[in-house]
Amino acid sequence: MAEQSKKWVLMVTAQTPTNIAVIKYWGKRDENLILAINDSISVTLDPAHLCTTTTVAVSPAFDQDRMWLNGKEMSLAGGRYQNCLREIRARASDVEDEKKGIKITKNDWQNLHVHIASYNNFPTAAGLASSAAGFACLVFSLAKLMNVQEDNGRLSAIARQGSGSACRSLFGGFVKWVMGKEENGSDSIAVPLVDEKHWDELVIIIAVVSSRQKETSSTSGMRETVETSALIEHRAREIVPKRIIQMEEAIQKRDFPTFAQLTCSDSNQFHAVCMDTSPPIFYMNDTSHRVIGCVEKWNRSEGTPQVAYTFDAGPNAVLIARNRKAATLMLQRLLFHFPPNSDTDLNSYVIGDKSILKDAGIQDIKDVEALPPPPEIKDKVPAQKYKGEISYFICTRPGRGPVLLTDESQALLNPETGLPK
Amino acid sequence: MAEQSKKWVLMVTAQTPTNIAVIKYWGKRDENLILAINDSISVTLDPAHLCTTTTVAVSPAFDQDRMWLNGKEMSLAGGRYQNCLREIRARASDVEDEKKGIKITKNDWQNLHVHIASYNNFPTAAGLASSAAGFACLVFSLAKLMNVQEDNGRLSAIARQGSGSACRSLFGGFVKWVMGKEENGSDSIAVPLVDEKHWDELVIIIAVVSSRQKETSSTSGMRETVETSALIEHRAREIVPKRIIQMEEAIQKRDFPTFAQLTCSDSNQFHAVCMDTSPPIFYMNDTSHRVIGCVEKWNRSEGTPQVAYTFDAGPNAVLIARNRKAATLMLQRLLFHFPPNSDTDLNSYVIGDKSILKDAGIQDIKDVEALPPPPEIKDKVPAQKYKGEISYFICTRPGRGPVLLTDESQALLNPETGLPK
Repeated sequence: MAEQSKKWVLMVTAQTPTNIAVIKYWGKRDENLILAINDSISVTLDPAHLCTTTTVAVSPAFDQDRMWLNGKEMSLAGGRYQNCLREIRARASDVEDEKKGIKITKNDWQNLHVHIASYNNFPTAAGLASSAAGFACLVFSLAKLMNVQEDNGRLSAIARQGSGSACRSLFGGFVKWVMGKEENGSDSIAVPLVDEKHWDELVIIIAVVSSRQKETSSTSGMRETVETSALIEHRAREIVPKRIIQMEEAIQKRDFPTFAQLTCSDSNQFHAVCMDTSPPIFYMNDTSHRVIGCVEKWNRSEGTPQVAYTFDAGPNAVLIARNRKAATLMLQRLLFHFPPNSDTDLNSYVIGDKSILKDAGIQDIKDVEALPPPPEIKDKVPAQKYKGEISYFICTRPGRGPVLLTDESQALLNPETGLPK
Repeated sequence: MAEQSKKWVLMVTAQTPTNIAVIKYWGKRDENLILAINDSISVTLDPAHLCTTTTVAVSPAFDQDRMWLNGKEMSLAGGRYQNCLREIRARASDVEDEKKGIKITKNDWQNLHVHIASYNNFPTAAGLASSAAGFACLVFSLAKLMNVQEDNGRLSAIARQGSGSACRSLFGGFVKWVMGKEENGSDSIAVPLVDEKHWDELVIIIAVVSSRQKETSSTSGMRETVETSALIEHRAREIVPKRIIQMEEAIQKRDFPTFAQLTCSDSNQFHAVCMDTSPPIFYMNDTSHRVIGCVEKWNRSEGTPQVAYTFDAGPNAVLIARNRKAATLMLQRLLFHFPPNSDTDLNSYVIGDKSILKDAGIQDIKDVEALPPPPEIKDKVPAQKYKGEISYFICTRPGRGPVLLTDESQALLNPETGLPK
């Protein structure tokens, strides 16, 4: 490191999307390296509505690695953070900033400390894959800061060691996580299938379910499934490989009926193996079941699927509509069955791309109350609506992969101090 | 038929228990004959608390077959009733009652009509296997009336054609339904494993869950599972056969830990394959999940299972406690988490063998309110109790098979008219 003022701070800010699996990852063959027992496929969600922004900074003035998540300092001691930091540092290259008079050599990185500030533009604890976006953004931004000369595929193998599904957040559109065969995990990487423009008709509505139950973490949940389920091996070996092939083809062809059938079946099978675990794991609750019932009933009445549903390790429903029209009709149905609590503002009940709400002809709470029962339930309109069972809806779409934010005003760390703004 | 007064009525009354599977039957290989895709094992429940009583009568004065269930006339046109009636008639023998001057020959039965009156001593629509007890009792009582010279094993193959699980209600104690290999179903019969005295320490508590959801019938549910689940074949072929062997051994040895582990796992796997069905079938609801959570937590804290749980095609929990002490402690836990609604009388909230309630030191609703949190949840006592989520509890035990009731006062038909009393 050149002899220079200890005062400089070098920063990089990046934004990384979250993703939702349509063929599920559940079960590891290596707990430490985070290697999966089957391939998985996900769709990346538009970072405009769900993303992590991370600023990483380096300075000779820093005396330890530190991290802040949503403004609150948190420990980096966990093995998953340490694995990511170690792997990125091992790949660091020379960095020179002539204007600032900074020169960092490959070897310097081992002794320099970093500050990391991360922010999710969505509730962290709501079960919306915040760790996927978070680790992807951590690895991506550190790689840029340290001038790592590897592509996003290789970076995905590092993000994977932070959180398995994080590897799929290194790309936009539809992404496959190839489980790989190598013991060291070097071939267990994410591969982009199609970018977000390939199938841009799709609209995604996330129903964030109000829940008072504490959930099993996905890390311990999948370990227990692998150890105790009599069905998981059959799923991973016999069923998923076929579904991966069919799903790739459905995505290439934009074949929504096949896509929907595979997405729903694979979500249900993931929850089935959770239930087959000892003790059983229940991620979906009665509200989740009611959302599925609503979608299934409508799809059947239309004769061909309009909407696919998928649920991760929690009760929230992710609904993928074939197009805007279907999304609009879906949202009307959801709001009919699940109106907001009377003290909830519609503006905070449907967030994200609010134009769907406008298309649905809904401007205020009175329009929600005036929604007629959907025709497919005309003979058995429920006596009761499920008011308050859903916290809010997020309207979004498939989105792009990680990007660098060069506008310094978007940085989360102070360029002088390297501390959170 | 001898020339005699047309006025005579010949009657038989029988009582048949219901049963609950501990290794589940789910899926048919023949829809009409009702042949299963795997063996199953059940425990017969004490008819004192859950049974069907059926009176069957024959008279030359009857001009058609008629049936009344719980006092209400219902159609016998369904294929399942017709199959049972046809099979029993085909096996009828001569009957002579010298005192009444009645003589019916084997061939007469084809032209004589029967009246059938059936009564369940438990709610019919509550998902408590009323069709199992019902068809078993129909077949058993008709066989006695028509002097069918076959043992209960052979009769079970007829009851099976009314409702698959009915075949297991022809015996007390633990019973295996052998799926059989023959195309005509002749070897698909129930076999008694041990009688009800073999393991008489067991105590059974049924939690009847309040439910406002309409459920998928088990007939259509299992058909859809066989047609669409990617896991059901693996379950039926690879998993159940091993479990049947282990379960038989656990029952023979009264090995409660193994029995409990198999019972819970198999119930969960049955619900897993239901969820893996397209569209998915959800029989358990949030209340069912909470009961499981309560049992699992307690079992874990004790280090060895105290209670096994199993759920049929509905949300009701059937809890099998290793002995009276465990049943008492279980009931205290259940009443702590699931107190009755304030307008519910304790006397109608815990029914069946009320001595368990007495052992639990609970005499009135104040004792329920005073129950302390179970020690295993002391660190996280739920803020909220699940009041009203359970309709009532039935305390019972393993019980005997079908019996004839010779006391004419117990008959459900008038001995003069052959019509319901």
